[in-house]
Amino acid sequence: QYSSGVRKVTLIPGHGIGPEITVAVQKIFEAAKVPIEWDEVDVTAVRGPDGKMGIPQKAIDSVNANKIGLKGPLMTPVGKGYRSLNLALRKEFDLYANVRPCKSMEGIKTLYDNVDVVTIRENTEGEYSGIEHEIVDGVVQSIKLITEEASMRVAEFAFVFAKENKRKKVTAVHKANIMRMSDGLFLRCCRDVATKYPDIKFEERYLDTVCLNMVQDPAKFDVLVMPNLYGDIMSDLCSGLVGGLGLTPSGNIGKNGALFESVHGTAPAIAGKDLANPTALLLSGVMMLRHLNLHNEAQKIQQACFRVLREGRVLTPDLGGNGTCSGFTAEIIKYLDEPE
Amino acid sequence: QYSSGVRKVTLIPGHGIGPEITVAVQKIFEAAKVPIEWDEVDVTAVRGPDGKMGIPQKAIDSVNANKIGLKGPLMTPVGKGYRSLNLALRKEFDLYANVRPCKSMEGIKTLYDNVDVVTIRENTEGEYSGIEHEIVDGVVQSIKLITEEASMRVAEFAFVFAKENKRKKVTAVHKANIMRMSDGLFLRCCRDVATKYPDIKFEERYLDTVCLNMVQDPAKFDVLVMPNLYGDIMSDLCSGLVGGLGLTPSGNIGKNGALFESVHGTAPAIAGKDLANPTALLLSGVMMLRHLNLHNEAQKIQQACFRVLREGRVLTPDLGGNGTCSGFTAEIIKYLDEPE
Ligand SMILES: CC(C)[C@H](C(=O)O)[C@@H](O)C(=O)O
Ligand SMILES: CC(C)[C@H](C(=O)O)[C@@H](O)C(=O)O
Repeated sequence: QYSSGVRKVTLIPGHGIGPEITVAVQKIFEAAKVPIEWDEVDVTAVRGPDGKMGIPQKAIDSVNANKIGLKGPLMTPVGKGYRSLNLALRKEFDLYANVRPCKSMEGIKTLYDNVDVVTIRENTEGEYSGIEHEIVDGVVQSIKLITEEASMRVAEFAFVFAKENKRKKVTAVHKANIMRMSDGLFLRCCRDVATKYPDIKFEERYLDTVCLNMVQDPAKFDVLVMPNLYGDIMSDLCSGLVGGLGLTPSGNIGKNGALFESVHGTAPAIAGKDLANPTALLLSGVMMLRHLNLHNEAQKIQQACFRVLREGRVLTPDLGGNGTCSGFTAEIIKYLDEPE
Repeated sequence: QYSSGVRKVTLIPGHGIGPEITVAVQKIFEAAKVPIEWDEVDVTAVRGPDGKMGIPQKAIDSVNANKIGLKGPLMTPVGKGYRSLNLALRKEFDLYANVRPCKSMEGIKTLYDNVDVVTIRENTEGEYSGIEHEIVDGVVQSIKLITEEASMRVAEFAFVFAKENKRKKVTAVHKANIMRMSDGLFLRCCRDVATKYPDIKFEERYLDTVCLNMVQDPAKFDVLVMPNLYGDIMSDLCSGLVGGLGLTPSGNIGKNGALFESVHGTAPAIAGKDLANPTALLLSGVMMLRHLNLHNEAQKIQQACFRVLREGRVLTPDLGGNGTCSGFTAEIIKYLDEPE
C-alpha cells in the first residue's frame, strides 16, 4: 500500500515535550538514512465550521494523503465540548487496532526481566463509544458498544500479527461472565478467528485474572487481544512492568492508514529544557518503519537505542540519569553504524 | 446493629475447597473462643418458582435474619440463564461497598514488601447492571449505570473507612476523560464527600495511570474508591502484588447486612485433599470480627495467622510448601494464646 522510494510521512510533533522528542527522532532517522520525507502538521485544536473544537483540516488532509503518521503527545484542553484529540485522530481514520508491545529492556531496572507481551486493543468502540445519557436526575448510563464487525477485524488482526511476528499464543481478555452479550460477542469472534489459525495457541481469560497473573508471572502471556477500555488499562499495566510510558511504543492501525504515537503525556514541567526522554516516540517510529517494510533501518535504530539504554551513560532524568535529550540522541546516532 | 453476647452468623461453606477451609476457620474461631454461633446454609442454586436458578430461600432467610455472613467460594454452573451466585448475593442484600485490603505479609515472597492498599469497590451497579441488548444482528450494547445515590454512599463509605482506620488518603479512580457523564458523576460525588473530610487527603487518578503506578510504586496509594468493574480488576491486581487471592480477604458491606468472603475459586482439582490454603477465608473472618467489634479476637487470630505464614514451616502447596490445610490450622491454633 506504500510507494517504494522516498515515503512521505505526516509528522505531528504535538505539545509540551513533543517538539523536542520529535526533533530527536528526525535527527536519528536522518542519520540512519531512512528514506522518509516528513510532512509536518500542527494539530492544536481549532474551531470548526460547526462551532466545535477539533483537528485542523490541514492535518486531516495530510494523514489522508500520506496514510501514515508519527505523533507526539497532545494536550487536550479541559472543558466541556472538548473530546480528546488523540481519540479524534483514531476515530477520524478508523484506526481499529491499537498495538502496544511491552518488552523488558536491558539496563532498565524493573521487577521482571522476562516481559514480552503485545496488547492488541480494539480502538474504535466499546466503552469509548461516547454515547451517554442522563436518564433522570442523578442516573446516568454510558453505552458500551460491541459489534461483530469491529470484533472480527481486531481478532483477525491479532492472529495475523501473531503469525507474522512468530508469536505462539493469543489470549482473549474479557468479562463475558458479567457482560455476557457484549463481551460474549467479542469472545465468540475471537474463537471464530482462532479456528483459522491452528498453529497459534488460543486461550480466553478474565480481565481481573489477567491483571493478577500479569503482575505475578508475566511470562504466562504473549499476544493479548481485548475490547477498548481493557486494552487501555492492560497496556498501561504492562508498560509499568517494563519501565513506563516513556519507553513503550504504540501503533494505531487501520485499513487505510496507520498512526504511530508515544502515549506518555506532554510533561509541561520539563518542556523546552532538553530533559525529555525520546525513547517511546523513537520506538514508535521503529514500529512505523517495520510497518513500511523498512526492516533494516528499523533494526539498526532499535539496536542503537537499546545499546544506549543498556550502557546507561546518558540516560535522561526520568530514568535516573542526568543526561539530556540531545545527548541521548547523539549517542544513539553514534552507535547507528557501529557493530555491537 | 448487632446484639452483644453470642452472635449468630450465617455460614456458607460453598463448593470445591469451600467446606474444608470453612472447617479450618470454624476450628480456629472455636479455639479463640469467638462468641459466635454458626448458622450453616447451602447455596447451591435451585430452580425457583419463576423457573430460574437462584439462591435457595433458606439461605436468603438466614442472611436476612442474621445480617452477617461468612462465605467460601461458589461454583456458578456455566450456561444460559445462570447469573453468578456471588453477584446474586451482593444484589439480594444490597451490599453496596466491597472492601478488599491488600497488605504485604512477611514470609510471602512478592515483588514489594510495602503494599498496603484498600480497594473500595462500588458493588451494585456500573458495568454490572446486567442490562444488555442486541440492537441489530451483530451489534450489542451493555449499559453501565452510574447513579448519584450509589456513588454518594460508596464515596461516603470510603471516607468513613479511611477515618476509622486512620488512613491518610483516598484516591478516586476513574475514566471521566472518556466516560464524561457516568464516571464524571461518580467523580463529582467523591469530590463532594471529600470536602466533608478535610483531614483526609483526596486525589483523583485515571484508572490506566493507577494500574501503571501500582505496579511501579504501590506505596503511592492508600485507600482507593471506584466504580464496580474498576474495583474488580484493581483488587485482583493488588492481590497479585501481595501473593494472590489465596491470601487476601474481602467484605461486602450494606446498610442492613454484611457478607465476608474469600474471592478465590473452588479449586476442584485439590478439593477434599486437605491441601487448600484457608488464609483468605480466615482473614475475611477476621474482617468480619472487626465489623462485629470483636477486636481482641480478630487481633489474636490475625497475629497467629501472620506468624504461621512468616515462620513458613507448614505452608500449603500454593505457597510453595508441603503442608496441609489441617496442619496449617493446627499451627495457628497453637499460636493463638502464645505471645509472639
Ligand atoms: C489520553 C487518553 C484518552 C487515552 C485513552 O484512554 O485511550 C490514553 O490513555 C491512551 O491509552 O492512549
Ligand atoms: C466471580 C465474579 C463474578 C466476581 C466479579 O466479577 O465480581 C469476582 O471476580 C470477584 O471479584 O468477586
